[in-house]
Amino acid sequence: MASGEGKKSGEGKKPNANAKGGGKKKEVKKETGLGLSFKKEENFGEWYSEVCVNGEMIEYYDISGCYILRPWTMAVWEMMQTFFDAEIKKMKIKNCYFPLFVSPAVLQKEKDHIEGFAPEVAWVTKSGQSDLEVPIAIRPTSETVMYPYYSKWIRGHRDLPLRLNQWCNVVRWEFSHPTPFIRSREFLWQEGHTAFATKEEADKEVLDILELYRRIYEEYLAIPVIKGKKSELEKFAGGFYTTSVEAFIPNTGRGIQGATSHCLGQNFAKMFDITFENEKGEKAMVWQNSWAYSTRTIGVMVMVHGDDKGLVMPPKVASVQIIVVPVPFKDADTQAIFDACDATVNTLNEAGFRAEADLRDNYSPGWKYSHWEMKGVPLRIEIGPKDLANKQVRAVRRDNSAKIDIPMVNLVEQVKDMLDNIQQNLFDVAKHKRDACVKTVRTWDEFIEALGQKKMILAPWCDEMEVEKDVKARTKGETGAAKTLCAPFDQPDLEGVNCFVTGRPGKKWSYWGRSY
Amino acid sequence: MASGEGKKSGEGKKPNANAKGGGKKKEVKKETGLGLSFKKEENFGEWYSEVCVNGEMIEYYDISGCYILRPWTMAVWEMMQTFFDAEIKKMKIKNCYFPLFVSPAVLQKEKDHIEGFAPEVAWVTKSGQSDLEVPIAIRPTSETVMYPYYSKWIRGHRDLPLRLNQWCNVVRWEFSHPTPFIRSREFLWQEGHTAFATKEEADKEVLDILELYRRIYEEYLAIPVIKGKKSELEKFAGGFYTTSVEAFIPNTGRGIQGATSHCLGQNFAKMFDITFENEKGEKAMVWQNSWAYSTRTIGVMVMVHGDDKGLVMPPKVASVQIIVVPVPFKDADTQAIFDACDATVNTLNEAGFRAEADLRDNYSPGWKYSHWEMKGVPLRIEIGPKDLANKQVRAVRRDNSAKIDIPMVNLVEQVKDMLDNIQQNLFDVAKHKRDACVKTVRTWDEFIEALGQKKMILAPWCDEMEVEKDVKARTKGETGAAKTLCAPFDQPDLEGVNCFVTGRPGKKWSYWGRSY
Repeated sequence: MASGEGKKSGEGKKPNANAKGGGKKKEVKKETGLGLSFKKEENFGEWYSEVCVNGEMIEYYDISGCYILRPWTMAVWEMMQTFFDAEIKKMKIKNCYFPLFVSPAVLQKEKDHIEGFAPEVAWVTKSGQSDLEVPIAIRPTSETVMYPYYSKWIRGHRDLPLRLNQWCNVVRWEFSHPTPFIRSREFLWQEGHTAFATKEEADKEVLDILELYRRIYEEYLAIPVIKGKKSELEKFAGGFYTTSVEAFIPNTGRGIQGATSHCLGQNFAKMFDITFENEKGEKAMVWQNSWAYSTRTIGVMVMVHGDDKGLVMPPKVASVQIIVVPVPFKDADTQAIFDACDATVNTLNEAGFRAEADLRDNYSPGWKYSHWEMKGVPLRIEIGPKDLANKQVRAVRRDNSAKIDIPMVNLVEQVKDMLDNIQQNLFDVAKHKRDACVKTVRTWDEFIEALGQKKMILAPWCDEMEVEKDVKARTKGETGAAKTLCAPFDQPDLEGVNCFVTGRPGKKWSYWGRSY
Repeated sequence: MASGEGKKSGEGKKPNANAKGGGKKKEVKKETGLGLSFKKEENFGEWYSEVCVNGEMIEYYDISGCYILRPWTMAVWEMMQTFFDAEIKKMKIKNCYFPLFVSPAVLQKEKDHIEGFAPEVAWVTKSGQSDLEVPIAIRPTSETVMYPYYSKWIRGHRDLPLRLNQWCNVVRWEFSHPTPFIRSREFLWQEGHTAFATKEEADKEVLDILELYRRIYEEYLAIPVIKGKKSELEKFAGGFYTTSVEAFIPNTGRGIQGATSHCLGQNFAKMFDITFENEKGEKAMVWQNSWAYSTRTIGVMVMVHGDDKGLVMPPKVASVQIIVVPVPFKDADTQAIFDACDATVNTLNEAGFRAEADLRDNYSPGWKYSHWEMKGVPLRIEIGPKDLANKQVRAVRRDNSAKIDIPMVNLVEQVKDMLDNIQQNLFDVAKHKRDACVKTVRTWDEFIEALGQKKMILAPWCDEMEVEKDVKARTKGETGAAKTLCAPFDQPDLEGVNCFVTGRPGKKWSYWGRSY
């Protein structure tokens, strides 16, 4: 599942300074959060690594391609998980947990599938000092882990639908350039695996799940995505068709597959003998789906919203939405200011916000501002002697640096408005930037020009696999080949439009571009 | 961590019929839930395997020692997780996620620790067709995975305490007899890893966490446990001291370590150089704890409460607390009965219970009773024509088969009372059985006699490691050697009491017995 998840060469590079875990007391400057050494516009790859580390989302680990997910990351993951898990439970999808390991015979049962994953499967061959009799694979995804048991559990039409999900880690031992969240050898995800009596039910679920993925990106992470269908070349290995939500990173001009919802058709059912007796007493084969989103989502969030001061967290997923900072002044009543900070935090938390005060006495207010800006906290509240006297606080937005004085009596109401506004503004700004990168083309020359301008290219084509292969071959270069991202469900008119490559009648509009 | 977790030879054996996963349409009788072929009193090991499978908690997997956790299991796990996760968050412990993999150099840094785990570490040596340059271990626990980064992150006293937890899978490739939940090669757990400036803080947390483990067992799983301290021989490999909650399985006469909360002292801090500048500006070493509970908890629940009709789920962790079964009668108004079932479920769910109706028309009420008894649903509600006429329902308890007619007007109130009562009764019955197995002895002869009677033996001893080794050697037999389970915090008087082995003055009372 999510076959495109971490398959192509990315641009992120880890700065050497942060590359080694366990180094003692190095790089103090960076890690105290006082600024970034790289700029997003100038050196995106280095900037990205640095902001992940200095924002305390990621720590590099001493095994290449593995990363430590710090609490600042896990809180985001858990917030998305809470949403998604509740939604799928409403759909009567149940959680389960299948083993991490899969035996080679089972793994290799579906030929197209294993061809897609074989090169990056990690193999356990020893335990303690002893060799195992048979090497055992670590799951890169769990179709082959699960489906022998679907075959066992499903007998009659009353056993359908069977709808399971698991939250787990998977391993894909890739050798292309590792990037935190985006391309890692181990990652966390959910994977749903469902079986239905009819294609119609499977088709419907594919879209229901895709809509949840859209909501994760747009409503939670404030990132605009395009829903569509993958080309035959880009679909899931062994599947029938793949739908996805596609995001775009303007700085690198690359599309990024956000999450995938696959209809597997009856292909795995055939290989794993997943049949049932239908209502007429005839033997029939199930229709299957699988779908997944991973911690990659968090990397897209960092890439899209982060700036030269650090992370920018959307309020809906920020583990701290409001940081309250006391601004004492030499003659002022420091204790009264600290008390006001505590009271403000209490008021906000009681109103359902996630607020904290930073009352440390060994850092200046300015240091704290930088620190929490690096961590991307959406709203900062400053309380100084003047604010105290005027029964107000000063609120500073992380997204646009706007400052506003809020009377204490309006605190909850105005903070709510501001957080809502920040969430919406992050989405609007991201959408504006993304839209500015979209270019519609109709000819090869226009396509090449747009590709050079790092665009997300909407182009009509004949939908032939050979043509996509040809485009990939002809655009192959240092920064990676262009390919289809998806054919958007929202299709422009095709009347009289020809393929931008072959000139043959256009069969669909697709987004094209380089991608992660 | 949890060094005793799955270390000794158990008694559970899987019936051959269920041993192979993926077998198609075999064993229909068993899997439709119509009865168990083994009795708990007569053949505990076979009974346990069968009840795990037929109750749909576990499916055997085609790799020995790995098990599929089905939704009926995951719901219990998630309910405990919700409780524990909220409690540790109140303690300001934060969730993180460290990699599955650990490099050999780091794994071997703490000598005692690796000695304890080395024989059962699984090694990845290949990816795709290529050999890795260096084999990589899969975490059996994460002390060595995490602590190099604790060394990096902790600099000053203000960085303390550092309190992290992760929910994850770990792998211990054991060759002793695998048993679902109790001894599996991969299992799910949480592992907390914390660092403090002082021993006092660490000591306090060890007990705070242990109390949460007691609550999981006693309040959620309705299983009595004994809190205590492990002997030097049984403590965590590389740790300072280990506390645990110990349960007991009367049928096998074996103790079972329920969960462990370790103080690691400064041993790992020394090996991993985890130091900080204290308030006086001096370099000091941190005090560390680690603590864990695993899916083993669920196995203990099955063993303690299950009976010859199947699982018995405590209401607080049952994913379905009440199953509503229509009992149509040939001349009766079937639709009205079905409607009454739906209405009952709605009323109960709106009141906050987890209720479902089984309206399948291809199974008889009798079949459904057996099915839901096998799954251990705490309360069954039957609705037939007479109930409908009398505006009542019939409620049947899973724990003691008591039947009671409930007027519809009192439904919510009486169901609440019954579920509370079931929860309490399960605990009381389990405690009564456990207490009946406890035997206090003072001499070797009494000890051997009690061991033969499968008792949980409370005996005074001199607390010498050599003596425990001697007891293990002298009691070694087919069913495993006796060892200390724990020294209970609640100590009987030691005045004038001598060691039951050496006759020397007794230093503490400990529980002894065979164990899982």
